[in-house]
Amino acid sequence: MKHLIPLDNLVAALSRLPGVGRRTAERMAMAVVQDQKGLMRILANALLEADEGIACCERCGNMTLTLENPCGLCIKPRRDAQILCVVETPSDIMKIEQSGGFHGRYHALMGKLSPMHGTGAADLRVDRLLQRIADEEIEEILIALGTDVESDATASYLKEVLATREVKVSRIAFGLPAGSAIEYSDSSTLARAISGRQEMV
Amino acid sequence: MKHLIPLDNLVAALSRLPGVGRRTAERMAMAVVQDQKGLMRILANALLEADEGIACCERCGNMTLTLENPCGLCIKPRRDAQILCVVETPSDIMKIEQSGGFHGRYHALMGKLSPMHGTGAADLRVDRLLQRIADEEIEEILIALGTDVESDATASYLKEVLATREVKVSRIAFGLPAGSAIEYSDSSTLARAISGRQEMV
Repeated sequence: MKHLIPLDNLVAALSRLPGVGRRTAERMAMAVVQDQKGLMRILANALLEADEGIACCERCGNMTLTLENPCGLCIKPRRDAQILCVVETPSDIMKIEQSGGFHGRYHALMGKLSPMHGTGAADLRVDRLLQRIADEEIEEILIALGTDVESDATASYLKEVLATREVKVSRIAFGLPAGSAIEYSDSSTLARAISGRQEMV
Repeated sequence: MKHLIPLDNLVAALSRLPGVGRRTAERMAMAVVQDQKGLMRILANALLEADEGIACCERCGNMTLTLENPCGLCIKPRRDAQILCVVETPSDIMKIEQSGGFHGRYHALMGKLSPMHGTGAADLRVDRLLQRIADEEIEEILIALGTDVESDATASYLKEVLATREVKVSRIAFGLPAGSAIEYSDSSTLARAISGRQEMV
């Protein structure tokens, strides 16, 4: 059977979605092409509308409506303007907002240092961060990056860059996750929990 | 955090893909929106191009390039025009072609009888099938539908409709799959394999 080039291209595009391999993409493409209710156009339109309607906040990088830029979190007067939480992606902002544990403002780097993926310091929104420190009344930078090697490298890099600025730099704590027991914790988690121990007051 | 309507719509559209639940669709939408390499437009374009470039063959229902209609399988002179294989979807045609076990022509019904999903006889391409029997030199209709209740109902319905036409009606065999043992076969498979036994010659 001859190959249908538009179908092959669709499979290739779908397989770039997270968690979608070649076989899954093929199954999806076949389902989309054969859908009797116009799923192909519905999906294409949803993508184009998201592309037009959603933008990154020019200030913090968070996702926002194109028509509301800077985003709600940046302009809300009730949020603490003195503490700025630096994250990797807008998704992280959403996660932290859901936790309810932070009431300051945000700054998404849109990545982390990764020689493997060719992401260098120039690709991150660090210049914009320094600009914000100069312009806004920021007293503390809270680095909310994960515990992988790339996040650690990015945190160290930020610490270095920020050393000359008059801001306190902190990083979220690493330790036992909520509800876990010593018995089931792995060694590195335990080691970090011990080194990050806090005085009980 | 306020909801972003274009993002919600994208999640809804993605969750209509096969095997994609709400959480997966959310993860996909976030990845697409945050992708730095324009995945959103790539995917939208691939969908629109597939929508324009791929059509159903007007004769057999198989997927084909919009510019090549009827499809290659319908016009290839070497294929046996006397036997017509009736399947549910174009995907089934692909599967059967891959098996290499059939050399006739195809006819996709684009569904099966399903009161649950509101699919009645009028929604299937049965009129077109009867027309083809009248126009072409078809001697045998091979029904290649699965073993679920809806497929059985569709097969019975076809058998009835075709009773007045001068064609032989057959159905693919059900029995033990290749490489399987009696020991690990379920009862209904075994029962069908026994009732469908074939004389050894």
